[in-house]
Amino acid sequence: MISLLPVAGLPEVRPGDDLAALIAAVARLEDRDVVVVAQKVVSKAEGRLVRLADVVASPRAIELAAGEVDPREIEVILAETERVVRLRAPFIVSETRHGLICGSAGVDHSNSGEDDMLVLLPEDPDASARKLRDAVREQTGADVAVIVADSFGRPFRMGTTDVAIGVAGLAPIRDLRGTHDRDGRVLRSTLIAVADELAAAADLARRKESGVPVVIVRGFPIEGDGSAQELVMPRERSLFD
Amino acid sequence: MISLLPVAGLPEVRPGDDLAALIAAVARLEDRDVVVVAQKVVSKAEGRLVRLADVVASPRAIELAAGEVDPREIEVILAETERVVRLRAPFIVSETRHGLICGSAGVDHSNSGEDDMLVLLPEDPDASARKLRDAVREQTGADVAVIVADSFGRPFRMGTTDVAIGVAGLAPIRDLRGTHDRDGRVLRSTLIAVADELAAAADLARRKESGVPVVIVRGFPIEGDGSAQELVMPRERSLFD
Repeated sequence: MISLLPVAGLPEVRPGDDLAALIAAVARLEDRDVVVVAQKVVSKAEGRLVRLADVVASPRAIELAAGEVDPREIEVILAETERVVRLRAPFIVSETRHGLICGSAGVDHSNSGEDDMLVLLPEDPDASARKLRDAVREQTGADVAVIVADSFGRPFRMGTTDVAIGVAGLAPIRDLRGTHDRDGRVLRSTLIAVADELAAAADLARRKESGVPVVIVRGFPIEGDGSAQELVMPRERSLFD
Repeated sequence: MISLLPVAGLPEVRPGDDLAALIAAVARLEDRDVVVVAQKVVSKAEGRLVRLADVVASPRAIELAAGEVDPREIEVILAETERVVRLRAPFIVSETRHGLICGSAGVDHSNSGEDDMLVLLPEDPDASARKLRDAVREQTGADVAVIVADSFGRPFRMGTTDVAIGVAGLAPIRDLRGTHDRDGRVLRSTLIAVADELAAAADLARRKESGVPVVIVRGFPIEGDGSAQELVMPRERSLFD
């Protein structure tokens, strides 16, 4: 059995906060737990915030805002965008510096703690995950895996699901190629994005409207180690770019 | 807390089998359980099987097989394809009659129970889910939701995750628009594809290599009702078609 355990009682996270200490104060972590943390609180702890009042919109941002959104928000999104993948102004599908393909370069502004702040993705979400994993082990002794999760839209499907943008302490893809099914047949197409499935599972327990940013997945058979970069399809393999 | 409970002890499913009876014989279902069933066993119970020996490959199928795969398999995939969305022969991304965008039109041939059989998607996976839901209620009294799940690849991301292709007894999308976050701000972009997240969560407990096709998700706050068609993005909204 696998359990999805929301971590209740976390305070509002602020720049400079020690996330591991905040989590350890309210949750009893066990070896082999997968700690799934919403990107937004990781970004806040790391100070990845931009005050809208400090932003000056360029002519390009003003044009793309199309009179529908705040051009300063578009300015920040463009600054976080390595490549515009699709554009239906004011909506931008971005490739970020991490190679992630997502709406608005992952820039968000709900839950920012103040009215006029935007939250950016972490500079290096794998490093964020690894740092949190190491701090948890140091502070509690528990050997956990960590996933930094964000809500992404998907081509062809309605609604968002949470995916893993940072990973530490588990292999994000389970490779079943060469293993056998119950008929003894060798499985062929069996790269399973378990880190994305873990992020999605955690979101079910998150109750987004009440702001539970950390969920523990307990009982999942963790294997290996790796990087969320393994979940990013190389551009030359993509049929949709 | 949400629990993901694999249902062990199911026999190999064959055409004409009563899936509800098979599940009820080995699992104690409770009201508000979400029963996530792998598409493959639903298809087998419904006899959605094609014997490869009965298929004659067309010249088009032979061409697309590119000498790499069995052209008769391509023939069956083409017959299940309403529209070819992308093509990198012999790999076909199909739109199925259900509007699903997926590799090989969802045609699969591992776990088919016999060497030379292909498994097609159910004719109407929502109807399959509803029939199973009704049969479970009739046979056990339990008022469950049902999801028919399949493993889909995703544009831009490596590996598959399970998604919901059939739904009964729950709203597949949770619409948080108009609700408030913990800062009191109205949430804007908050259509959450909970049925896909439930399918993905269940896959974590499935242990595909040992063939557990049914997983119970217990403790998820089910709301509403609906169809997996709500998860299919209308083509005119797609930026990637």
